[in-house]
Amino acid sequence: MDDQVFVLFGGSGDLAKRKIIPALYNLFLNDKLPHGFAILGLSRKSMTRESYQEFILSSIKEYSRHSSDDMGKTTTFIDHVYYLSFDACEPNDYQSLKTSLETIEENNYLPQNRIFYLSLAPDLFDQVALYLKEYSVTQSSGWCRLIIEKPFGHDMASASALNERISSAFQEHEVFRIDHYLGKEMVQNIEVLRFANSIFEPLWNNRYISNVQITSSELVGVEKRFDYYERAGALRDMVQNHMLQLLMMVAMEPPSRLNTEAVRDEKVKVLRSLRKFTSSDVTKHIVRGQYASGNMDKHSVVGYLDEMGIDPQSTTETFIAAKVFVDNFRWAGVPFFIRTGKRLDKKETKIVIEFKNLPERLYFNQNGKLLTNLLTIHVHPTEGISLQLNGKNPEQDGVVSPISIDFSQETKDLPESYERLIFDAMRNDSTFFTRWDEVKLAWKWIDPISQSFADGHPLYTYEAGSSGPKEADELIQTDGHTWW
Amino acid sequence: MDDQVFVLFGGSGDLAKRKIIPALYNLFLNDKLPHGFAILGLSRKSMTRESYQEFILSSIKEYSRHSSDDMGKTTTFIDHVYYLSFDACEPNDYQSLKTSLETIEENNYLPQNRIFYLSLAPDLFDQVALYLKEYSVTQSSGWCRLIIEKPFGHDMASASALNERISSAFQEHEVFRIDHYLGKEMVQNIEVLRFANSIFEPLWNNRYISNVQITSSELVGVEKRFDYYERAGALRDMVQNHMLQLLMMVAMEPPSRLNTEAVRDEKVKVLRSLRKFTSSDVTKHIVRGQYASGNMDKHSVVGYLDEMGIDPQSTTETFIAAKVFVDNFRWAGVPFFIRTGKRLDKKETKIVIEFKNLPERLYFNQNGKLLTNLLTIHVHPTEGISLQLNGKNPEQDGVVSPISIDFSQETKDLPESYERLIFDAMRNDSTFFTRWDEVKLAWKWIDPISQSFADGHPLYTYEAGSSGPKEADELIQTDGHTWW
Repeated sequence: MDDQVFVLFGGSGDLAKRKIIPALYNLFLNDKLPHGFAILGLSRKSMTRESYQEFILSSIKEYSRHSSDDMGKTTTFIDHVYYLSFDACEPNDYQSLKTSLETIEENNYLPQNRIFYLSLAPDLFDQVALYLKEYSVTQSSGWCRLIIEKPFGHDMASASALNERISSAFQEHEVFRIDHYLGKEMVQNIEVLRFANSIFEPLWNNRYISNVQITSSELVGVEKRFDYYERAGALRDMVQNHMLQLLMMVAMEPPSRLNTEAVRDEKVKVLRSLRKFTSSDVTKHIVRGQYASGNMDKHSVVGYLDEMGIDPQSTTETFIAAKVFVDNFRWAGVPFFIRTGKRLDKKETKIVIEFKNLPERLYFNQNGKLLTNLLTIHVHPTEGISLQLNGKNPEQDGVVSPISIDFSQETKDLPESYERLIFDAMRNDSTFFTRWDEVKLAWKWIDPISQSFADGHPLYTYEAGSSGPKEADELIQTDGHTWW
Repeated sequence: MDDQVFVLFGGSGDLAKRKIIPALYNLFLNDKLPHGFAILGLSRKSMTRESYQEFILSSIKEYSRHSSDDMGKTTTFIDHVYYLSFDACEPNDYQSLKTSLETIEENNYLPQNRIFYLSLAPDLFDQVALYLKEYSVTQSSGWCRLIIEKPFGHDMASASALNERISSAFQEHEVFRIDHYLGKEMVQNIEVLRFANSIFEPLWNNRYISNVQITSSELVGVEKRFDYYERAGALRDMVQNHMLQLLMMVAMEPPSRLNTEAVRDEKVKVLRSLRKFTSSDVTKHIVRGQYASGNMDKHSVVGYLDEMGIDPQSTTETFIAAKVFVDNFRWAGVPFFIRTGKRLDKKETKIVIEFKNLPERLYFNQNGKLLTNLLTIHVHPTEGISLQLNGKNPEQDGVVSPISIDFSQETKDLPESYERLIFDAMRNDSTFFTRWDEVKLAWKWIDPISQSFADGHPLYTYEAGSSGPKEADELIQTDGHTWW
């Protein structure tokens, strides 16, 4: 990994404090940062370097997964931290940024390798990128990289416009679009499970798989991000990015090589094969919901319309269930069921591969009483896989019972998504970041659905703490399946 | 289940005490015996019914898996027990047996259903069967059944002669030949695992399976049965019956129905497809061994030749490793490795299905460093299955590590083999007993091997407490495999 400076825009913000700084600190403790590195925090606050270092220390104490037994190490880490008071909308400040960077680099004998992490409101992304170029901050003798997070646009048009502006300052290979689901251990493991085990690939197709279910359910409601969420809804907030990413990982063909572009090419092919929805398809294939009041863990909670900052007439969805198809040779006829929502009965992200049942006329499945084989990839909060099989019931003669064989990641102390992803960006591995054509194709697929929502697609309410609207159950039941 | 009388020949013997009586008692406690039943113990000892009942009680106390909390139940069970002093070689005694049975049946309002369990020296089997017929003990108004244990003959000729004599007294469907391996939970589970799970059948063939390894290793040496063992050796004692039975369960085609004859027909087909060995094949495919002295669990133990009752010049094998082939469409080219022996380093019976490795030129197996996928069926003493997969190593970036997903029978209190098998015989289910043609074909396959042994096939010694002779390792290594 090259020596470099990590420039953290929004350096005193919530995400910086909870995720980014602890991630950098843990990378440091695990000797995963280069010998020569500096962190330059930027924010509008007027702060000394020392008080920013205090902020860093409090972030580490509160949020780092490793406790800092060794104060010496922590002190060394803090010594690498700098601060600049900075307004992202103020052109002059980019001049100071350039100067600061050059000073830091010179004093620390660092090459001019710069990584810009924009932990900022998304509507600033393009402006900052353009200013960085305009004021020559990106004109370094080394390399420059840009890390940004979702949302990347609001639809295909806005995303394309945003991308056009960013790409006038950064080339595609310099842009690292974070989808933090791709940083999760078990999501990264899907590729290994699928392609490093000879028993899965022969089964991984429409001859043996009946359907795939991808669920990401949350307990929490809309919380503080109401402004963004009101405009996004579950479709843009979850489906366009995270859910489609999980789907791509499950559905992609084996890449010819394991390198970044080969993997991303295969993912894009999945999006290209995703069946487009006409508005009448949307009616049949998508259920949207919005939570009403209810009980969560014995406390009553308000409905979405009564949440702070939400328009009481809002038709923003907090729940989506969708039945989608990947129209290629491997997956023809296999429905992928996607389900995500807030204020549901559990916090869980998992992928269930349901294998076809034995035909009912077959002796071994007389009366259709056998449960199907399920391969479950537990993404969050449990991390592991389990396989549901049928076995002989040892206590009841002639009875077949389901048995579950399980594997859980026993390492409690796994790197967090941000740690993996920041590490990857610093070493220039963009395999687990989304490429522009992925983003574009995802929006292209999402846009008709958003349009249909705007045109009055039914919005069902569901009680907070439930498993979502009953229409989502009906969606899967019409195919004779059930949510696992 | 019909009301019946269970006639136990060798009723005061070691097997009766340790296995058969506890099995009957546990069946009784689990309400698996019919309402009307009696147990008639036979042995040469002169004993009153009361003292035999005392013997039964001591057997239960010492060997039953259920403790008899409820003395009332135990007393009821004991009340069903009768005794007759009986010499199996004395024709007159069969007359008394007939009378005794009729009295017991009459007094207890039982139909004349009789099950004869010959817990006797095998050379008495045919004589007893013939006397039972000659003295009309089998001429009852109900049914009669005969249960016998291994060895069934010493080679094909003697087995055929034995069978001929037995079948002049009992029809094939009345003969229950016990192979206690077939009574084991996980052996009976193989059929369910294979045919009640849609994911296994597509993989269960030579396209995906590289080899199958069947191991049954013992810690003990020859022990008290030296007389029998000297004549049998591991080939006759283990391979002809238990090991081939396990092989048949793994290799058989799905039966058209789950009934007894359909299953046994499929098993016989496996034996018919088993590649016959010429004497030069035996040299290449079979390793025989005999244990020398060594250390077991820190105690030194003597070699086979120094065991009590063993001829110091004996060439009897206590270890066999064999590479065999099932020459049919499913298994063409897949070696089945069989390994069994005494005085080995662990007590373990298991079946390992090794799936083919990913080709080394494939990106996902660069340098051939991936472990293969293994499905292990743990038969004894552990009962369960495990699946070895490759997964992402969460701690080392880009490293693939083996992960194991496991299922163990959690029910501690499983019925023992004898319990299952006696229950099956009493209810006339002979699925897990060996049919005559199985026995015959097994001997037919074994005979050239025995001949080759007699003709001076190499006999390797191995240290007690080791994993067997190194030639057994070489046998599997020539194919590029390794014992798991």
